[in-house]
Amino acid sequence: MMSKAVILLSGGLDSATTLAITAERGYDCYALSLDYRQRHVAELSAARRVARAFQVLEHKVIPIDLSTIGGSALTDSSIAVPEQPSEGIPVTYVPARNTVFLSLALAWAEVLGADDIFLGVNAVDYSGYPDCRPEYIEAFQAMANLATRRGVEGQTLRIHAPLISLSKAEIIREGVRLGVDYSLTVSCYQANESGAACGLCDSCRLRASGFREAGVPDPTRYQSSASP
Amino acid sequence: MMSKAVILLSGGLDSATTLAITAERGYDCYALSLDYRQRHVAELSAARRVARAFQVLEHKVIPIDLSTIGGSALTDSSIAVPEQPSEGIPVTYVPARNTVFLSLALAWAEVLGADDIFLGVNAVDYSGYPDCRPEYIEAFQAMANLATRRGVEGQTLRIHAPLISLSKAEIIREGVRLGVDYSLTVSCYQANESGAACGLCDSCRLRASGFREAGVPDPTRYQSSASP
Repeated sequence: MMSKAVILLSGGLDSATTLAITAERGYDCYALSLDYRQRHVAELSAARRVARAFQVLEHKVIPIDLSTIGGSALTDSSIAVPEQPSEGIPVTYVPARNTVFLSLALAWAEVLGADDIFLGVNAVDYSGYPDCRPEYIEAFQAMANLATRRGVEGQTLRIHAPLISLSKAEIIREGVRLGVDYSLTVSCYQANESGAACGLCDSCRLRASGFREAGVPDPTRYQSSASP
Repeated sequence: MMSKAVILLSGGLDSATTLAITAERGYDCYALSLDYRQRHVAELSAARRVARAFQVLEHKVIPIDLSTIGGSALTDSSIAVPEQPSEGIPVTYVPARNTVFLSLALAWAEVLGADDIFLGVNAVDYSGYPDCRPEYIEAFQAMANLATRRGVEGQTLRIHAPLISLSKAEIIREGVRLGVDYSLTVSCYQANESGAACGLCDSCRLRASGFREAGVPDPTRYQSSASP
């Protein structure tokens, strides 16, 4: 029997590549997406397309309304998404988002009997979010092993972040090698309903320069005349 | 200005006592309850009554449907709540529940600018859940301080579990001293809609023997002729 893994799948470039890596490593893949009332709901349609392309065993979408908590440009429509680079942790940071998402992945992993959780965080070409750093991932794993029945019973849960030390260009090259169709993915923080990207936000900029640097044609659809 | 604290408020005996302790320590209290499609929805009405009695500054109820994950008698109606004590971690354990709840408390704390989170876990008269142990709470705190903007900026977040080493009788005596009206609370895993308790589940047994041991009259309403 193959081992099961839960993959956090946002529908962006990084999580699609992470799913491809998980599948290549031979896991039975269970994809988890969160409908957190994000500004960029086109992400969820992208997640469904990517999950289908990789024929995951199950794709679960859990609604969790983070807009009631607010505090981020991605969950509070009164805060604008910046269209210029900024210093420090940007307003697109969603408080404790990866902790909430990993907690739900942990719950599902326990019910499935999975000891492996994959997520596509990256600490090189990233927006400077605290919950994308290696020390955070290690601390979550330590906590997770104390939190669950499987942990108590001696199973070790591992949190895998296979992209964490790759540049965006390296991620794209790895994804191309594994057959990821990046035209299915949406990275833009303010994509329109059809998934077309603004070309201006931090996520669009990182994505576009990744494709350029990797020497891979950029399949991103941009809104009208927008281009990064 | 007083410090803000987020309190996880289930509506049971322990969380009501924890709220009383937090208020006594002089914090501005923000109560958080989760509507996780628990079997015992009467808990949420109890949480609202308790929040009102303590005049918290805000009581937020976030819906998060853990029944889509299942794996527990509290979230899956096809698994019966045991009415006899059992060995090991019981089927009422909800996978990663405290991790999911604390993650949401962490998110709200960050938006509020609160550095203190209180929860009523107890590792003495408890059901043997892994996420009620002191080592789990410490590991969550360590992770939380790496997860957030406030952590990066040098603020220290503390997770308080003031009941963790108290017996149920000690918790009740402390609550009585602080003026908690336990008739407002519901602990039963299968309370009916009006909040009347079954008298048979693990939670009812622990509660009833706590009142007996504390020498405090038990204000719990039981279903018809049920009594522990």
